[in-house]
Amino acid sequence: MRPVYLDNNATTRVDPEVVQAMLPFFTDHYGNPSSNHDFGASAGAAVRKTRLQVQTLIGAEFDDEITFTSGGTESDNTAILSALEVMPERTEIVTSAVEHSAVLTLCAHLEKARGIKVHRIPVDRHGRIDLDTYKAALTPRVAIVSIMSANNETGTIFPVPELAELAKEVGALFHTDAVQAVGKLAIDLKSTAIDMLSLSGHKLHGPKGVGALYAKRGVRFCPLIKGGRQEGNRRAGTENTPGIVGLGMAAELALKFMDDANTRVKALRDRLEKELLQRIPHAFVAGDLLKRLPNTANIAFGHIEGEGILHFLNREGIACSSGSACASGSLEPSHVLVAMNIPNSAAHGAIRFSFSRNNGEEDVDRVLEVMPGIVKKLHDLSPSSPARRKDFNQLQLRATTQPPSTVSGQGGCNA
Amino acid sequence: MRPVYLDNNATTRVDPEVVQAMLPFFTDHYGNPSSNHDFGASAGAAVRKTRLQVQTLIGAEFDDEITFTSGGTESDNTAILSALEVMPERTEIVTSAVEHSAVLTLCAHLEKARGIKVHRIPVDRHGRIDLDTYKAALTPRVAIVSIMSANNETGTIFPVPELAELAKEVGALFHTDAVQAVGKLAIDLKSTAIDMLSLSGHKLHGPKGVGALYAKRGVRFCPLIKGGRQEGNRRAGTENTPGIVGLGMAAELALKFMDDANTRVKALRDRLEKELLQRIPHAFVAGDLLKRLPNTANIAFGHIEGEGILHFLNREGIACSSGSACASGSLEPSHVLVAMNIPNSAAHGAIRFSFSRNNGEEDVDRVLEVMPGIVKKLHDLSPSSPARRKDFNQLQLRATTQPPSTVSGQGGCNA
Repeated sequence: MRPVYLDNNATTRVDPEVVQAMLPFFTDHYGNPSSNHDFGASAGAAVRKTRLQVQTLIGAEFDDEITFTSGGTESDNTAILSALEVMPERTEIVTSAVEHSAVLTLCAHLEKARGIKVHRIPVDRHGRIDLDTYKAALTPRVAIVSIMSANNETGTIFPVPELAELAKEVGALFHTDAVQAVGKLAIDLKSTAIDMLSLSGHKLHGPKGVGALYAKRGVRFCPLIKGGRQEGNRRAGTENTPGIVGLGMAAELALKFMDDANTRVKALRDRLEKELLQRIPHAFVAGDLLKRLPNTANIAFGHIEGEGILHFLNREGIACSSGSACASGSLEPSHVLVAMNIPNSAAHGAIRFSFSRNNGEEDVDRVLEVMPGIVKKLHDLSPSSPARRKDFNQLQLRATTQPPSTVSGQGGCNA
Repeated sequence: MRPVYLDNNATTRVDPEVVQAMLPFFTDHYGNPSSNHDFGASAGAAVRKTRLQVQTLIGAEFDDEITFTSGGTESDNTAILSALEVMPERTEIVTSAVEHSAVLTLCAHLEKARGIKVHRIPVDRHGRIDLDTYKAALTPRVAIVSIMSANNETGTIFPVPELAELAKEVGALFHTDAVQAVGKLAIDLKSTAIDMLSLSGHKLHGPKGVGALYAKRGVRFCPLIKGGRQEGNRRAGTENTPGIVGLGMAAELALKFMDDANTRVKALRDRLEKELLQRIPHAFVAGDLLKRLPNTANIAFGHIEGEGILHFLNREGIACSSGSACASGSLEPSHVLVAMNIPNSAAHGAIRFSFSRNNGEEDVDRVLEVMPGIVKKLHDLSPSSPARRKDFNQLQLRATTQPPSTVSGQGGCNA
């Protein structure tokens, strides 16, 4: 049976056109883009072309506002650390309680190791940011605000253009982790006060290991990775030419398919939600129903373990997730749903179905077909049932086959 | 005419077997290795397999000593910054004057921004490290020593196992940038006192955008890129599965072809050097002739500009370099040759020919065929000759077509 991939917020299938675009840069145009010969020149030209493709996708005013990185996490880390470096007199960060770990883990480290004050703005039960608390946190002590464009678990969209205007009033830089939004939503940075934006290739059918950081012209900048003069002195290290070229093609295709995401994909998602809720009692959709990514459904199934649902869905060849892949292996409920004040009993049973342009009606049909049975089975399994013990043991096994942390003596700074 | 690629220390052609190994991870096994479903599991298994391949190549005792990164520069930065973080009471770094910019630029930043004392150990005219100065710099104030395994420009090999033993005596961590050595020299880390080692995929016929940092078990560690729990909490960000798999295959092939590098490739290099020196007056080989990488020839042609030689070689379809690609576009003589006290007139005319297993006798023949004419032409071009002015203008043009630094208001911390 054809597997059903509904975990596109974790990562996406690389588009075959992207792979085709990348291939010549492994074995033909393999020069170092910084080299002064024809091998280098053809690679360098490709990197410059990609900058234009990414510029177009996010509506940047200038191509030199784009710096290629190894991905969203590096971009997020670079933006925040850069702001602290260029404005050492400002020692506070404003972020939200529902950011990706790429932001929250760094902030927790900065708080502990460097005494930076971190304001984690709460959200309401729909995942919407608390504007009053946000405004109150904005002072001239804030170096940078980092608020995501759209939440990876619920798809809730944040009003980042407005939030950026408010940050500007106190002279703080405004960064947005737009890893989940880029390619799904129309973005026009030149018309906003957003200073920095992170994006990642593999969330939009591009390759893993490549991303970009936008920084508006005039924004002072300090590189995270220091060394050679690549990327206009903003990111050292030999440019990942095939990856960068792949990101460029992915950006081009994302623009081309954006209407599809906003209509066909959204219709698939809406049908899944509607019909699941009709068939399964005690289930509800988490997130801001009025302002959400068109591809994301976060459904909380009351009183059962999300890991159990995932396990049985996986047996049926259906891939989705409970929370973020970056936190998987953890049996704690998602920090996003906890921040939304969703009761533990429901948060533990939350499943994220995230669609892409590769999905079709048959994927929705498959989930609808198997899901009621899975939920019933999990409800029926009583703690004393031998069947439940067996399945529970299997779940435990899955949870512990994640590579263990192999780090000894962390020096207290392990993220 | 078939182009001649002799710039393998800048980057290498990705081996077609490596590309084949990577391909399924773009469009088939495209799951996020951290995801708890079969798509994730197949990607995760591939990442674990690669760790074993890299472990074997560098003779690490345990596979969990390997952390995948985005490349050599990130690995170098991570190692040095980690040491300072886990030993805040130690505020000195020992390095050499001839390191790659990934180490030197970071050290210069740390010196300026954080008051870290940096000892840059000088080298002699053969590029060999000054052992007395090295020993004198080693005190309990040193957090980390970072000395490269082999120099990228001259190929000179440093006695890192011995240097690591000396560092251990004062409790300093020992890191080596082995980006140029891995895949060319046999390495057996478990028998050494080396604590950390950086390597890069694209220097050994693997993909760009992926590398690794070895850290011996028990070495305290602080991640540079903070966020999710990937890589045993040592490097956040979705794993670059195709790149990592490519690095693994490249590691396997490097071991297979290592004897070839040490015999056939070395014979090619030696023949080029010998015959060039016979044909061209005032030329000499820079580096430690007794302890060099088998693939690297750095030849200084007196009283002519290296950029001119490169330009005419490139016209003949021959790619090589003057110094490091990371510093290209600069018309200053290489910091490595300056540190070796090679006179400016010779350092300006130094050309690095770096071979790989893809090269053959015909490549040497081509260089020998055209090089004497190029040197003669450059010698003959007097400043008053119209021909020289034209060519000189072209050279200037090439030097300025590098993408300019587009950074405004650097905040003094741009690397």
